[in-house]
Amino acid sequence: MRVIFNEEMKAIASNIERMAELVAKAMNDAGSALLNADLEAAQTVIDKDADLDALEANTIDQCLTLLARQNPVATDLREVVATMRLAATFERMGDLTSHIAQITRRTWPESAIAQEGRETIVAMVDFLRELSGHLTTMVANRDVQIAETIIAGDDALDKLHEKIFELVEGENWKGTRRQLIDVVLLSRFIERIGDHCVAVARQIVFIVSGFDPSKKPEPDKDTVVA
Amino acid sequence: MRVIFNEEMKAIASNIERMAELVAKAMNDAGSALLNADLEAAQTVIDKDADLDALEANTIDQCLTLLARQNPVATDLREVVATMRLAATFERMGDLTSHIAQITRRTWPESAIAQEGRETIVAMVDFLRELSGHLTTMVANRDVQIAETIIAGDDALDKLHEKIFELVEGENWKGTRRQLIDVVLLSRFIERIGDHCVAVARQIVFIVSGFDPSKKPEPDKDTVVA
Repeated sequence: MRVIFNEEMKAIASNIERMAELVAKAMNDAGSALLNADLEAAQTVIDKDADLDALEANTIDQCLTLLARQNPVATDLREVVATMRLAATFERMGDLTSHIAQITRRTWPESAIAQEGRETIVAMVDFLRELSGHLTTMVANRDVQIAETIIAGDDALDKLHEKIFELVEGENWKGTRRQLIDVVLLSRFIERIGDHCVAVARQIVFIVSGFDPSKKPEPDKDTVVA
Repeated sequence: MRVIFNEEMKAIASNIERMAELVAKAMNDAGSALLNADLEAAQTVIDKDADLDALEANTIDQCLTLLARQNPVATDLREVVATMRLAATFERMGDLTSHIAQITRRTWPESAIAQEGRETIVAMVDFLRELSGHLTTMVANRDVQIAETIIAGDDALDKLHEKIFELVEGENWKGTRRQLIDVVLLSRFIERIGDHCVAVARQIVFIVSGFDPSKKPEPDKDTVVA
């Protein structure tokens, strides 16, 4: 049983690593497409999202089969259940990269980013790029230290998100209302991707240690906008 | 084994029904607090969100124990896994009602809704109220017909969300930029709650029939903003 479990879990883990790679690529590509107003790159991000949807469905099916056949317990069970949550989170992250790409596509050939918001959005896209590198390594190596770096670093992204609100409310803002909406939504989507990276990091800590860091009482990171 | 499974599953199902009731109440209370600029009601929604977080953690733990001890297969396994997804979705819906309440609290004693957006937001809150009634009955009775009604009805909420974008971009909009942001975010949070109701409805269909309606190819409902 043990050998079969390990074999099957290895196949599922490789699916999850593939999902992490696809999400990381989508984060980078959606960010570049946004900054460069690149229609083709945006369309590719939108089209590729279906791959993540399919991989999620496939991963869940594999996990269900494994649960039914192998009846894993203790750390094995924890790993299977955490893996299902990871698959769902990656699928959602794909949706969010697609939302960013859709805004890029809609405003094309114009940039979706009003000049006044550009510096902050560039900083957020840079942050995404760094996160995407962390994400693949963390998932492939189950690296708890990277997970803790991601969890601790999320505040910086939240601050950039808050800065967008200050900018669009401030007197230097000259953009149109549509540009205002777009920059707020872009910032919100990026901030949510950051939240999901934190959720992934917590699942990695949970898989490795059995300790769920999300059970520590702490403020909901997703409330800075209000 | 079978008797024990049924007993334990019954306890978990009653947790899930309780979560559905709490979410339904939060949807109604956050909506009323928003329309009436009621600070106390808004604060209650924010405070009560912790109950949903605790119930989610509790439900996941119960499901893990059940999986380990009973090794459910086929429809039983499907039910346990779908239940974990329901718990996670309800937890997220609680967050969204809390976000709505936080906007209500921040703008108090002013209403968070600029006059020009009021009619549409009232319609969205009415929609939430109807959804909340459907939600508890659907979950308690595993009612596939209600589930299909919810899935089919979500377009109407998406249309209201789109209408908000038209309003704030239109020439009749006289609100401030902060009011514009708030009404867009409120609309987005309500629309997301609707999406999550659809996800719950799909899980109910999946539990009852084994058929996952989310695997039907269809456009991502969460993209109307872009």
